[in-house]
Amino acid sequence: MSETLYVIKIGGNVIDNPDACARFLAVFAQLPGTKILVHGGGKVATQIAARLQIETQMVDGRRITDKPMLDVVTMVYGGLVNKNLVAGLQSLNCNAIGLTGADGGIIRSVKRPVKTVDYGFVGDIEEVNDTQIDAILNSKLIPVIAPLTYSNEGSLLNTNADTMASAVAVAMASRFAVKLIYCFEKKGVLSDPDNDEAVITSLTPPTYAEYKASGVINKGMIPKLDNAFSALDRGVANVIICHADDLEKAVYGDAGTTISNV
Amino acid sequence: MSETLYVIKIGGNVIDNPDACARFLAVFAQLPGTKILVHGGGKVATQIAARLQIETQMVDGRRITDKPMLDVVTMVYGGLVNKNLVAGLQSLNCNAIGLTGADGGIIRSVKRPVKTVDYGFVGDIEEVNDTQIDAILNSKLIPVIAPLTYSNEGSLLNTNADTMASAVAVAMASRFAVKLIYCFEKKGVLSDPDNDEAVITSLTPPTYAEYKASGVINKGMIPKLDNAFSALDRGVANVIICHADDLEKAVYGDAGTTISNV
Repeated sequence: MSETLYVIKIGGNVIDNPDACARFLAVFAQLPGTKILVHGGGKVATQIAARLQIETQMVDGRRITDKPMLDVVTMVYGGLVNKNLVAGLQSLNCNAIGLTGADGGIIRSVKRPVKTVDYGFVGDIEEVNDTQIDAILNSKLIPVIAPLTYSNEGSLLNTNADTMASAVAVAMASRFAVKLIYCFEKKGVLSDPDNDEAVITSLTPPTYAEYKASGVINKGMIPKLDNAFSALDRGVANVIICHADDLEKAVYGDAGTTISNV
Repeated sequence: MSETLYVIKIGGNVIDNPDACARFLAVFAQLPGTKILVHGGGKVATQIAARLQIETQMVDGRRITDKPMLDVVTMVYGGLVNKNLVAGLQSLNCNAIGLTGADGGIIRSVKRPVKTVDYGFVGDIEEVNDTQIDAILNSKLIPVIAPLTYSNEGSLLNTNADTMASAVAVAMASRFAVKLIYCFEKKGVLSDPDNDEAVITSLTPPTYAEYKASGVINKGMIPKLDNAFSALDRGVANVIICHADDLEKAVYGDAGTTISNV
C-alpha cells in the first residue's frame, strides 16, 4: 500500500482571520506523515491594491489580473501570506518551505487565452513536476504553495488555489495514496445555505447531480466540487471539504463532506 | 579537492535596473556547477512603502523596520523581487527556488537587541542550516535567497543581504570550495571614488588597513569588506567584489577586486 500524502488547501477566509489561521496551523503542524499545504489569497491583496490605488476588477467572481495587479498578488500571495505561514509553521517545528509554481519549476501554466474576457496574467495549469515535488518531500520539507504559477516566457501568473491543490494531488497520485482536503470557513457542503450545521456528509456523482439540479448546490461550490470529482477520476484516493477548525477530525473522516466517485 | 560552490550576491541597484538585471541573470543561469544567489532589496520597497503612506526611517544608512515596514519588505523582497528572479531564471532553464531564511529553516536569526537605536524587526543571524541547504542543492535546485530571516518565535526579520551571503558562504565551506562573489554597480573596490576605472585588483589585510587609514576606503564599503575578510578567516576559499556585468570574467579572476587574507 502506498504511503499517504495529505494535500490540504486552506481558503482565503481562514488566512484573513489571524486566530482561525493560528488554530489551523497548530493542527497542520501536528499532522503526522507527508503533507503539502496550498493556500488561497484572502482579501489582503484587494486591500493592498486599494491602498496603492490599483483598481480591482472582478468578472464572475474572478479577479482580472493586469500587470499592476499581478505585482500586487505576487507581493501578497508569494510574499506576505506565504512567508508568514512558513515562519509560523517553523516556530511550530514544522519544516515548511514556501513555494510558488515557479520555484523548482513545480507548476507551469500558460497565460489564459483571451476569449470573451481578458483575464490578464492568469494561468491555466499545463504541467505539475511531480518528480521535483517528490524530491522536495524526500528532503523532509513541507511545501507551502502560493496561488501563483509561471509560464515558459518567465512570467508569473495568478492561478486558482483550488485548481492548484487538485492538480498537485492528481500529479502525486502515482506515488502516494493522496488525501485532498479543502479547508474553508463552513463545515462542509451545506444542504441549506442558511444553516451552517446542515452538512451533506457524503457526495457521489448521482447525489451531486441531484443537488445541482435542485439548486441546493450552486455558485462557487460547483467549480470546487467539479475539481474534487475530477481529482478522484484521476487517481486521488479521497477528497474531503471541511471547516478549517475540523482538519484533525476530517483526516479520520469524522467531519466535513466526503466526496467519492462510487 | 572539494567541488566549487559559487555564492553570488547581487545588489539592489542591479535589481532596480531591468536591463542590468536581465544581463546578470543570463550569465548566472549559464554559470556551470553548484551555485546560490543572494539578492538585496533595491529601491522598490521604499517606493511601495511611500505609496502605502508608510514612512521610511533610516539611521546611518540602515532601514528601521517597524511592523508595517516589515510587511512591505516581506512583500517586496520575499515576493515581488524574489519570485520574479525565480521566474526569470526558470525561463532560462535554470532550476531556481526562491527562499527566505524561514524556508526550510535555512537561516535563523534573533531580533536585534535595542541599544541606542531600535532597528525594529531586523535580524542578526544565529544559525545557518548547512545540512538543509546541502539537501536542496542535492535536489539540483538553485537557491535564490531573499534578505529575510526568521526567529524562533515565528517572526520574519529584515536582514542584511551582504551578511546573509557571507554567512551562507561560511556555513557551506566545510562541504565545498566556496567562491563568494559580490556583484554590484561598480567595477570593484575603487581607489578613487570619482574614477570608475580605478579598481583595486587585490586587497589583503595590510593593504585594506592602509586604504582605510588614508580614507580611500570608507562608508558602505567597510562593512562589505569586513564581511569579506571574516568569510576568508572562516574557511571561504575566495571573495571577489565586481560589477554585475563582469560576473563571467570575475569567476576566472579576470575582473573586480579579489580579497585574500595572505
